[in-house]
Amino acid sequence: MSVVTSLSREELLAMQAELEARYAEFAARNLKLDMSRGKPAGSQLNLTNAILDKLDGYKTEDGVDARNYGGLDGIPEARRLFADLLGLEYDNVMCGGNSSLNMMYDTIVRTWIFGTGGNTPWGKLEKVKFLCPAPGYDRHFAICQDLGIEMIAIPMTENGPDMDVVEKLAAADDSIKGIWCVPLYSNPQGICYSDETVDRLAAMKAAPDFRIMWDNAYGVHHLYGEKALKDIFKACEAAGNPDRAFYFFSTSKITFPGAGVALMASSKNNMAETRKHMGVQTIGPDKLNQLRTVRYLKNADGVREHMRLLANELRPKFDIVLNTLRQELGDTGFASWTEPKGGYFVALDTLEGCAKETVALAKQAGVTLTGAGATYPYGNDPKDTNIRIAPTFPTCSELSMAMELFCICVKLAGVRKLLAK
Amino acid sequence: MSVVTSLSREELLAMQAELEARYAEFAARNLKLDMSRGKPAGSQLNLTNAILDKLDGYKTEDGVDARNYGGLDGIPEARRLFADLLGLEYDNVMCGGNSSLNMMYDTIVRTWIFGTGGNTPWGKLEKVKFLCPAPGYDRHFAICQDLGIEMIAIPMTENGPDMDVVEKLAAADDSIKGIWCVPLYSNPQGICYSDETVDRLAAMKAAPDFRIMWDNAYGVHHLYGEKALKDIFKACEAAGNPDRAFYFFSTSKITFPGAGVALMASSKNNMAETRKHMGVQTIGPDKLNQLRTVRYLKNADGVREHMRLLANELRPKFDIVLNTLRQELGDTGFASWTEPKGGYFVALDTLEGCAKETVALAKQAGVTLTGAGATYPYGNDPKDTNIRIAPTFPTCSELSMAMELFCICVKLAGVRKLLAK
Repeated sequence: MSVVTSLSREELLAMQAELEARYAEFAARNLKLDMSRGKPAGSQLNLTNAILDKLDGYKTEDGVDARNYGGLDGIPEARRLFADLLGLEYDNVMCGGNSSLNMMYDTIVRTWIFGTGGNTPWGKLEKVKFLCPAPGYDRHFAICQDLGIEMIAIPMTENGPDMDVVEKLAAADDSIKGIWCVPLYSNPQGICYSDETVDRLAAMKAAPDFRIMWDNAYGVHHLYGEKALKDIFKACEAAGNPDRAFYFFSTSKITFPGAGVALMASSKNNMAETRKHMGVQTIGPDKLNQLRTVRYLKNADGVREHMRLLANELRPKFDIVLNTLRQELGDTGFASWTEPKGGYFVALDTLEGCAKETVALAKQAGVTLTGAGATYPYGNDPKDTNIRIAPTFPTCSELSMAMELFCICVKLAGVRKLLAK
Repeated sequence: MSVVTSLSREELLAMQAELEARYAEFAARNLKLDMSRGKPAGSQLNLTNAILDKLDGYKTEDGVDARNYGGLDGIPEARRLFADLLGLEYDNVMCGGNSSLNMMYDTIVRTWIFGTGGNTPWGKLEKVKFLCPAPGYDRHFAICQDLGIEMIAIPMTENGPDMDVVEKLAAADDSIKGIWCVPLYSNPQGICYSDETVDRLAAMKAAPDFRIMWDNAYGVHHLYGEKALKDIFKACEAAGNPDRAFYFFSTSKITFPGAGVALMASSKNNMAETRKHMGVQTIGPDKLNQLRTVRYLKNADGVREHMRLLANELRPKFDIVLNTLRQELGDTGFASWTEPKGGYFVALDTLEGCAKETVALAKQAGVTLTGAGATYPYGNDPKDTNIRIAPTFPTCSELSMAMELFCICVKLAGVRKLLAK
C-alpha cells in the first residue's frame, strides 16, 4: 500500500468511499464501548477477589489494633512491603488511603500554602509554572489548572521528556517549580525514562524548591518482561539536590482501583514537612485496608507474581491493539504510534489536525475514547494529532471491534483532511 | 465535708498528708493507663467485628462495580442511609474516606486557596480569624493553627457557645470567617446546642463568607435517651444565609475509628464548589468500605440499634466517672464538672491554676490524661482549670482505679495551691 500522502485525488476519493462504507457498517451495529479511561476490566479485578474475604485478625505486626485510630504513616508491614518492592527507604515511605492522586494534590497544596524548605509558599508567588511532558496524564494537568499553575508542554523523546528543553527552561526561570513525570511506561506513550534522563532531572539547575512529581503509577506493571528504573532519590542525593523528588505509587492497578493503598515517599526533610501538616489533616489512613492488602499480596515477590497474572490478562489486549494498528495502519502514513512494554496505554498520532475528528467519528459510532487533546496541558494538543488508547476495560472481542472501528476513523479523518486541502 | 476554700491551714495540712499517702499508694502500683484520647476500647470495637466478614458482591445498588474507579460522592446507599439518619438532603450529602477531620481540613484549605461564593480566598487576606468555643476539640484548633488562623476563644454556656459574645464579635469584624461547633454532646463538655443557639448562629450578622463548621461527630451517640438537634441548614435558609454551614459526620465511633466512613454536607452552592476541586484531588472514595459499612448497618434504624449496643458498653464507664467524681469531689469545692447525656467526654474544672498540676500528678502515677490546656486555642487555658476526661478506652476496672487516682490528684493539686497562697 502506498503512503496516503502520495495518493492522487482519485485514489483518495476511492479510499474515502470504501472507508465511509465500512464506517457506516460499524455505525449500524449500535456499539456502546468505553475506552476513555485506564480502567481495569471486571475480569481483571476478579483475579483479586480473595482480598474481599473475611479479615482474620486485625492486629498489625507491631501489635496495634488496626480497627482503631492512629498511625499516620500507615502500618509497618505495608510500608516495608512497598519499600522492598520499589527499593525505597522504609523511614521515608508513607502508606495512605486509596488514592495517590490525592497525595499528589495534597503535596502541591502543602507547598502552595506553607512552602517547602523555607522558601516562599507557591501560593504567595506572582507566578508558578510547571513543566508538563506531553502527551501526558490529564489528571496531573488538572491539578495545575485547578491551582492556576501555568503549564509548559515539554516534548517527549523515546527516553523521557526532552531534557535539553527541560534543562534550558528550568535553569532560566525560577518560577518553574516542578515537573510531572510518569517515569515507567508513561501515560499515554508507555515510554520509560532512561538512566540519563533520571540523572539529568536530578542534577539540572533549577529553583531551590523545584520538585519532581515522580508518579511511578506503572512501576511494576510490566507486560513483556521487567524493566528497571534508575533510583530517583539516589540520583538526587548524588547531585546535591536531596529534597527534589516526591515519589508516588499505588495498588490501584494491582488490587482494586477504588480500594487500593496509595504510597508516597520523599527525603527525610520533605517527609517531616509532610507529616507535620498531614498530622493535622487526618488521624491516619484506613489501616484495615492496608492489612487486607498486605495479607493478600504477602511480600514484594507476591506482588510480582500477582502482576504476572494481571499481565496475562492484559497482554492479549495490548496485542489486539498493536496488531490491529499494524494491519490497518501499518505503512499507510495515516498514523504513528508507540509500542509500550507495560503500563495501561498506547498513544497514537494521526495526521495533523485529525485527532479531534477521529475521536468524534468513533464516538458517533459508539466507541468513547479519551478526549482528543486531553493528553496535553489545557486540553490543547497544538497539532491535534495525539490520541490515547486505553485497551484495558473492554473485553477482547469488544476491543477487536473497537480497534477496527478506530482505525477506520483514523483513516477516514485523514482522507477527509487530505481531500479538503 | 466543708468546702475546701473555707478550711483552716491546719485542716488543709491534714488533708494534704492524707492525700499524699493515698497518692503514694497509687504511684506504687505502677499503673499504665491512657485516657488521653476519645478512643473506643477493643471490647467496644468487637461489637462491630462482623463488618470484617467476607464482602459478598461488590455491586452498588445502581449496578456500579465498587471495586473500580469513580463515584466522587460515594455510593448511593451510603449517602441515603446517612441522609435518612441525620435528616440531610441526599443531593447535598457526600460520603468519603475514613476521616471527617480530613474533610474539614480540606474544606478550609479550599476556601483558603479558592475562596467561596466569589469572595477573596482566605489565604489572600491580611488576617483570618475563627471563633473557637472553648473548652473545645483540640484537633479543630490545630487546623486553625496550622493555617495561621487567629483563634478567639468563646465561653461555653449550657446551651452552646455564648451567643451574645459570638454575635457581637461576628458583626463587628469581617475578618472573622468561621466558628467551630460540635453541636451535640460537645467535646469535651457534652453540651447540646439549644434551638435558640442554632437559630442565632444561622441568623447573626457576619462576613458573607463566614462559615459554621458543624462537626456533628456525636450526632447519634446518645447514652441516656435521644436528644434532638435543630436542623442547621433549615435555620440558615430561613435566615437568608443558605451557604453558611458545612456539616460533618463519620462512623468513626459507630463502626471502626480507623476504617469508618466520613460524610460532609452543605448547600447546593457549597457542594458544587467542593465537588469542582475535589474532583481534581481524587477519583473517589473507597466504595468497598462504604458498601461494607452500609451492609453492616443496613439503614438508619440499624444505626440507632447499633448505637444502643454501643451505649450499653459506654454507659457504665460514664457512670463510673460521674459516680467517682460525686463521691470524691462532690460538695468539696475542689472541682465542678459536666454530666453529659452522650458523646465521649466529661469535662472537669479544677480550682484555678490546678489543671496542669493535676494532669502532671496523674501522669507521674501512670495515668495519661489529655494535656491540660489542650481544650483551649493555642493550648492556653487562661485559668488553667479545664481537664478533659476520656473514659472510653480503659476497661471498667482500670477506669475505676484511674478515676480514683484522678480525684486524688485534683484534690492534692488543689490543697497544695491553697497552701501556697
